[in-house]
Amino acid sequence: MGAGPGDPGLLTVRGRELLAAADVVVVDRLAGAMLLDHAPSSAEIIHVGKSPTTRSWSQEEINAVLVDRARAGARVVRLKGGDPYVFGRGGEEAEACAAAGVPCGVVPGVTSALAVPALAGVPVTHRDAAQEIVIVSGHLSPGHPGSTVDWAGLAASRATIVVLMGVARLMDIADALLAGGRAEATPVAVIERGATPAQRVLRTTLDALAVDAIAAGVRSPAVIVVGEVAARDDAAVDLTRPLAGVRVLVARTRPRPGRLAIELRALGADAVETVVARPAPATPTR
Amino acid sequence: MGAGPGDPGLLTVRGRELLAAADVVVVDRLAGAMLLDHAPSSAEIIHVGKSPTTRSWSQEEINAVLVDRARAGARVVRLKGGDPYVFGRGGEEAEACAAAGVPCGVVPGVTSALAVPALAGVPVTHRDAAQEIVIVSGHLSPGHPGSTVDWAGLAASRATIVVLMGVARLMDIADALLAGGRAEATPVAVIERGATPAQRVLRTTLDALAVDAIAAGVRSPAVIVVGEVAARDDAAVDLTRPLAGVRVLVARTRPRPGRLAIELRALGADAVETVVARPAPATPTR
Repeated sequence: MGAGPGDPGLLTVRGRELLAAADVVVVDRLAGAMLLDHAPSSAEIIHVGKSPTTRSWSQEEINAVLVDRARAGARVVRLKGGDPYVFGRGGEEAEACAAAGVPCGVVPGVTSALAVPALAGVPVTHRDAAQEIVIVSGHLSPGHPGSTVDWAGLAASRATIVVLMGVARLMDIADALLAGGRAEATPVAVIERGATPAQRVLRTTLDALAVDAIAAGVRSPAVIVVGEVAARDDAAVDLTRPLAGVRVLVARTRPRPGRLAIELRALGADAVETVVARPAPATPTR
Repeated sequence: MGAGPGDPGLLTVRGRELLAAADVVVVDRLAGAMLLDHAPSSAEIIHVGKSPTTRSWSQEEINAVLVDRARAGARVVRLKGGDPYVFGRGGEEAEACAAAGVPCGVVPGVTSALAVPALAGVPVTHRDAAQEIVIVSGHLSPGHPGSTVDWAGLAASRATIVVLMGVARLMDIADALLAGGRAEATPVAVIERGATPAQRVLRTTLDALAVDAIAAGVRSPAVIVVGEVAARDDAAVDLTRPLAGVRVLVARTRPRPGRLAIELRALGADAVETVVARPAPATPTR
């Protein structure tokens, strides 16, 4: 199941229904973690992503826990950021389930590759400026022997290029596109932590990308858009997020994420939850 | 607002909320029409797409009605199939609103380009089979002077190619990819009316695509996937749609689409609504 790009309002209706009926939720990203309160409080939550204190699970370990819990009779939701089949290895997990005789279905999600630019005002297509959108994984450098991406071909095309997982290779990617013939002045937008209240947008050009990104201190996760549309700013006012830019501190007595914070984030607020001691019963004063 | 690919369960949570608060809904596709019952019964519904009895509106006319209704104080939802910025001209409409001083926001949707293949068992990426996904509009033939798509470059790449609006140009598209060097045996999946109970999937290869599509009588709307992943069939059993393959006749006394049919479709059923006369009060018989 795709969790969408980070904004809880961009979960699908079916996704929310299935989460509410889950016995087990296997989750690997912060985007997903914000949605966990949709699951029953009795559900087992298994975090398989890296955290400050734990390593991330191997793909084999993830496949094994999905199969194991399903065979034990549980309804298992595998919650993945964005769309599960866009560089999400959802296909491998579905394959592992099928091989083990575990029936499974897919619930597509709103992909960060398209939604994060849109929410930052960048339409990936606009009139005839883009009849072609390329979504590419930047986790391998253009020069890496394992890379199957035709960067020279991309450079020569007129496609809007959306790079996911590319922050660590920004300089190599810009160099490869320039070497392939994309114009130095090609607009670029780098959207850091998109679809969340912490969103930051860097606007630059292809020749200045690497220097500007370093100067701005861009960090993962970020979506990089290269092409004429990256200069656009189409949704400067977003009525759907009336609390955008507002930070709200939510005090809780339970460590689990709460519905109030989810609702606040859906309205655009930066809801920060903190666990506090349950207040002692009031002592009457005279 | 994106309506998603056709399955009502793939509307976003925020999309449903905003529809429920709409004064006016401007809709152009069947995918959107199935969701109209989420709007209040008092909402004005404006169909701008082509129907058997009406022509489709020009982009200027659509822009004008959005601005007009908004200026009159209405909350206007512009409901578009899939995602509004993936060849949906959503950017142009946002631009028109901005130029007229009408504030607007964007609600991304699940795009048909990725979800329709996924629901048909085709993951657009799988392991290292695809580090690159290209979404391309096939509404202009590869030889058309207005086409900005680099078909030769696409052919030479190892990207998964997803073609939208390409049914009318299937032969030209296959020829262009073969001429550019894509292997004749490259798997192709054509998914007609995807994400609906009427889905049909054609599996073939690039060299046989045109002939097989004609033989199968493929018609729009269809999503075409070219690449190694098109041979995959990952979600043969879809537990999320328990009524898939079941046709249900829903009798109604009002011509407007009803919630029962929406719910049935969300479960995978092919719900066919028919308007019947309201039953006369029962006449007592002795």
